[in-house]
Amino acid sequence: MKNQDRYLRGLEKLKEVSGEAGERVIDNLKDIAPDFARYLIEFPYGDIYSRPGLDLKSREIAVVATLTALGNATPQLRVHIHGALNVGCSREEVVEVIMQTAIYAGFPTALNGLFSAKEVFKERDASRKS
Amino acid sequence: MKNQDRYLRGLEKLKEVSGEAGERVIDNLKDIAPDFARYLIEFPYGDIYSRPGLDLKSREIAVVATLTALGNATPQLRVHIHGALNVGCSREEVVEVIMQTAIYAGFPTALNGLFSAKEVFKERDASRKS
Amino acid sequence: MKNQDRYLRGLEKLKEVSGEAGERVIDNLKDIAPDFARYLIEFPYGDIYSRPGLDLKSREIAVVATLTALGNATPQLRVHIHGALNVGCSREEVVEVIMQTAIYAGFPTALNGLFSAKEVFKERDASRKS
Amino acid sequence: MKNQDRYLRGLEKLKEVSGEAGERVIDNLKDIAPDFARYLIEFPYGDIYSRPGLDLKSREIAVVATLTALGNATPQLRVHIHGALNVGCSREEVVEVIMQTAIYAGFPTALNGLFSAKEVFKERDASRKS
Amino acid sequence: MKNQDRYLRGLEKLKEVSGEAGERVIDNLKDIAPDFARYLIEFPYGDIYSRPGLDLKSREIAVVATLTALGNATPQLRVHIHGALNVGCSREEVVEVIMQTAIYAGFPTALNGLFSAKEVFKERDASRKS
Amino acid sequence: MKNQDRYLRGLEKLKEVSGEAGERVIDNLKDIAPDFARYLIEFPYGDIYSRPGLDLKSREIAVVATLTALGNATPQLRVHIHGALNVGCSREEVVEVIMQTAIYAGFPTALNGLFSAKEVFKERDASRKS
Repeated sequence: MKNQDRYLRGLEKLKEVSGEAGERVIDNLKDIAPDFARYLIEFPYGDIYSRPGLDLKSREIAVVATLTALGNATPQLRVHIHGALNVGCSREEVVEVIMQTAIYAGFPTALNGLFSAKEVFKERDASRKS
Repeated sequence: MKNQDRYLRGLEKLKEVSGEAGERVIDNLKDIAPDFARYLIEFPYGDIYSRPGLDLKSREIAVVATLTALGNATPQLRVHIHGALNVGCSREEVVEVIMQTAIYAGFPTALNGLFSAKEVFKERDASRKS
Repeated sequence: MKNQDRYLRGLEKLKEVSGEAGERVIDNLKDIAPDFARYLIEFPYGDIYSRPGLDLKSREIAVVATLTALGNATPQLRVHIHGALNVGCSREEVVEVIMQTAIYAGFPTALNGLFSAKEVFKERDASRKS
Repeated sequence: MKNQDRYLRGLEKLKEVSGEAGERVIDNLKDIAPDFARYLIEFPYGDIYSRPGLDLKSREIAVVATLTALGNATPQLRVHIHGALNVGCSREEVVEVIMQTAIYAGFPTALNGLFSAKEVFKERDASRKS
Repeated sequence: MKNQDRYLRGLEKLKEVSGEAGERVIDNLKDIAPDFARYLIEFPYGDIYSRPGLDLKSREIAVVATLTALGNATPQLRVHIHGALNVGCSREEVVEVIMQTAIYAGFPTALNGLFSAKEVFKERDASRKS
Repeated sequence: MKNQDRYLRGLEKLKEVSGEAGERVIDNLKDIAPDFARYLIEFPYGDIYSRPGLDLKSREIAVVATLTALGNATPQLRVHIHGALNVGCSREEVVEVIMQTAIYAGFPTALNGLFSAKEVFKERDASRKS
């Protein structure tokens, strides 16, 4: 396989999952670390997200849980709450995933995750997305 | 609702998800913090796991991702790799969830998660579980 | 015991420890996750904070230390710096607790904790609280 | 003040709080990083622990909470569960502090903290300490 | 050695590494925790940074990596991106250090580190520093 | 560029930095997640470690600092203490890097890092490596 194929496959997947928010991250990297923008497309999206064996909705459930638990990745959590909704999770499911993490990572990160979800839901209401 | 109902509902759910491993944790708490054993059944299992709005398999995907990412909860990760398999995840899905977290929490925690999965799979081979 | 009793006992304790700031968190959850607002009252405040065996001032010392060390829970740390002062800690004691965590969690989280304390103290000066 | 005074004051405090376990850490550092052994006596014990403004029992409550929440410092948590008991906490109070952190840092770190406490209590039973 | 010597040596080192940004942190501590300001000068800068055995540029590489990985210490990361550049790292080297941490601490903390670097580079462009 | 080239370049770099310990990790992944073994060679070693702009010794300084600070990646820290020594760091420099992280990530992770270094140095003494 050529590396160019990984890149194109990753770009496609980035658009599917993270939409405009993902493309904005790529743009913001261009003047400081353009290679890192490329890696971000190739490894996470071209390699991992493109794998068979787990559907995209389940991948986003795992990612929302991970980013909520880490607690120091708010911008990325918001991108992936959008992502979860983009690939078929309902708002209720997103809220349940975040509440589930309270058991393992504590109430503060879960609360901060729920408040991120609240803002994302408002943004989507404003642009009439589910 | 009586609190006794939460306890019984939680105990049922604990057995369904975490099986013997969950019961062993409860037993180990009895002489040091018996009330904490009760809370563990009531809040995580009686309240959160028992909620509608997200199927049990998706909850365990979120939990395996969270515990892998935290990186300092190895005994609990092993309990919930068992749990994910108990409620219908395939081994391949568990492996994919752990690999997915590498993007967000780094390669070391993902590696340690994969090695935990490897040990759990061996245990289940020995007792002929899928 | 009825679950309603846990809720009422927790609400009382929430008001005692976290005052208006705690009630604001509950309000902010109402449209996104009302059940989580209820759990927050029932488990942390109705179960844990209401236990005998450790006085409320010592509980808040433990909580300020924990939230400083986690480093990703600034809104909650501010609520509980208020909380520590509400249940009888002096400002000096709060500052000492935060400095103590520098040894174990590093200077940056301790510095950020001290700057949170500084803002909380200003808020309380403005409303003439000790 | 001479630095020698900080060292002697710190050594005194280390013995009071951490006893033999603290001295063993110092010994283990001697061949790899003897200066770090000295810093450990001077800054944490000579500077911070020796401050007025917060009693030693409250300091150890803060430390047990912090180390439980960090979750990756098991040997140090055990030293400071001993420490808390050495400076006047009851076993019940130590258990309450660890349970309190479950709210903020999650059930797994609290569980691991409780199991550390269980081992420390056994060690102290064997040497007939409270 | 007198403790006053540690303080003066530390203050010198603080100025060399962290410049005005470091002095601003010290100033901000004066009304809330003046002793902590003193400790910050004495232990990190007077003891650790002043040690032989590792050049200052390598120390700052270690510090930028550590603060990026922690992910909850943005103000301190910015101070030490300045610091790394102040003691001889090139901008390219700083960017490489941050990208290197992506492997171990995940893409989100690396992304947030790169965006901090971008802001620091802009500040330095504005004041014509390399 | 073909992806095969990334793999070969990464394998070369893995051997240079991590030696047998790195190859053992790859072997241990073969039955559970062979693709993850491939990614580990391609992205960290084939992409990041192979970049110009920062010498290999400085990269390993950043990695030892990161892994010490994370505190939950002991096996990987040991691999990279070996790695740092393999690419030209002295033992003294490794010890200094770990002590430097104490400021930012606390004494416990630094202590655990120093004890990992102590074990690695013993292993290397036994096989007569510097």
